[in-house]
Amino acid sequence: MGVSIGGDFVIEFIKLHGAGNDFIAIDGEKYIYEDYSEIARKMCHRRFGIGADGLLVAKPSDVADCCMIYYNSDGTRAKMCGNGLRCFVKYVHDTGLVDKDEFEVETLAGIIKVRANVEYGKVVSVRADMGRAELSPEKIPVDYAGSDFLSKTIEVDGQQINISAALVGVPHAVIYVDTIDMEKVTTLGPKIENHSIFPDRTNVNFVKVVDKSNLRVATWERGCGYTLACGTGICASAYISNILGLVSESVNVESEGGKLKIDIIDGLIYMDGPAVKICEGVMEV
Amino acid sequence: MGVSIGGDFVIEFIKLHGAGNDFIAIDGEKYIYEDYSEIARKMCHRRFGIGADGLLVAKPSDVADCCMIYYNSDGTRAKMCGNGLRCFVKYVHDTGLVDKDEFEVETLAGIIKVRANVEYGKVVSVRADMGRAELSPEKIPVDYAGSDFLSKTIEVDGQQINISAALVGVPHAVIYVDTIDMEKVTTLGPKIENHSIFPDRTNVNFVKVVDKSNLRVATWERGCGYTLACGTGICASAYISNILGLVSESVNVESEGGKLKIDIIDGLIYMDGPAVKICEGVMEV
Repeated sequence: MGVSIGGDFVIEFIKLHGAGNDFIAIDGEKYIYEDYSEIARKMCHRRFGIGADGLLVAKPSDVADCCMIYYNSDGTRAKMCGNGLRCFVKYVHDTGLVDKDEFEVETLAGIIKVRANVEYGKVVSVRADMGRAELSPEKIPVDYAGSDFLSKTIEVDGQQINISAALVGVPHAVIYVDTIDMEKVTTLGPKIENHSIFPDRTNVNFVKVVDKSNLRVATWERGCGYTLACGTGICASAYISNILGLVSESVNVESEGGKLKIDIIDGLIYMDGPAVKICEGVMEV
Repeated sequence: MGVSIGGDFVIEFIKLHGAGNDFIAIDGEKYIYEDYSEIARKMCHRRFGIGADGLLVAKPSDVADCCMIYYNSDGTRAKMCGNGLRCFVKYVHDTGLVDKDEFEVETLAGIIKVRANVEYGKVVSVRADMGRAELSPEKIPVDYAGSDFLSKTIEVDGQQINISAALVGVPHAVIYVDTIDMEKVTTLGPKIENHSIFPDRTNVNFVKVVDKSNLRVATWERGCGYTLACGTGICASAYISNILGLVSESVNVESEGGKLKIDIIDGLIYMDGPAVKICEGVMEV
């Protein structure tokens, strides 16, 4: 329930961004709703609200140090959001909801271990254990009978396209390109997203291999189109590129919104990237 | 200069919207910069900032009750903004910077008389005297030798289009349509905006006449594309429609972002519409 000030219900918020993906964070113990869907839509609306890609709600957890509940700007709930997770860590750390630099966050995609890089008492970047990518076509899911869906060919508009896919919280397809061409991202992206081989649709990453330690990625996100950076997409791109022998275990990945560092250790993906506070305030709802 | 809190410079802001056009308002007497261009770009950025269509800076005035300095989100300064003006009036009234319900606002487009409709001490809507529309092709400007540019024909992609134009602070073209077709707005809009007959380019309003008292308008804005509502575009659409005998002197105009009421009295345009506070807070700059 909101706090009443002069008859209006107001919610205190902090807006943050992680590599250009922006989020509104609120204290879910102070503002208790059964469903934050409407709150997410209202607060995230770009013109009638504050404006953000998603809403992060911080709740207490029985199994970890805190629980992250994540809603997309359209009010749908999502299991996980890589860039959102880093912003969430900064939020709960800097507001004192969690009094540690290394802790565990409960999400719908499981418990995620995080480590905050703190300067002058504030989080500047976060390293998160994103777990193991799932390569089984059944789990991604891809409608393909085989043990993985790496470097396969699909047909789009009569054109043969080489493609790979993995599940990193959400399904991700990877296509290698010589240059990141935004027109290609916005025309080919939705066609692959909705290709019949992906029964749950897919996110689509256009990946340019710069050298063994550097990638450039542009992600077409399932349901929301092109975004400045997609945390899980960057993880999937680095992971698949490493398996295919295109990059080493430690990769810098640049997207339009910023840079992340991905380490692959014993098959586990670690994502390291910035979390920045933009503003704080109160909104009448 | 910003206020220093814990080493960071922060600016207090209020975010508001007028018919879906959103603005950040700040106190220009408290935060003094020679040029607010960079502040506007930072605060208005949709992902790295709070996000808004423009920045409203409230300054004291020698010739009116206050002065509105307006910047677009890209950091360029604009003479006037109809929806922004109503939000500005709510900002200076509700924060106590101006202690009147009827007052004068200095803008680069001249002094504008405004009347705030106040409920429980807060502005809910604003009526503004938008002055006289300029019909002279030289002043709009339109590259056309004649006394006005009403119901003329131009060629776009080999197609003959009936068009009218007026200056309401900024140049506005009006095209009548049977239905508001967004594909037409986004394809024809930029072509007319950049048509050689408009030396300073133009805003383009797609207008559907519902009846003598009602219009629907979708505006393609010069330099920023389609927006949910354009205050001056709605004024120009009502004014031109009245001159052409399509509507009466008192017109309700609906756009995707909300409704405005336009009255034309002795050739002067009065715009009446909502101003809504979204949130308030502080941003580190």
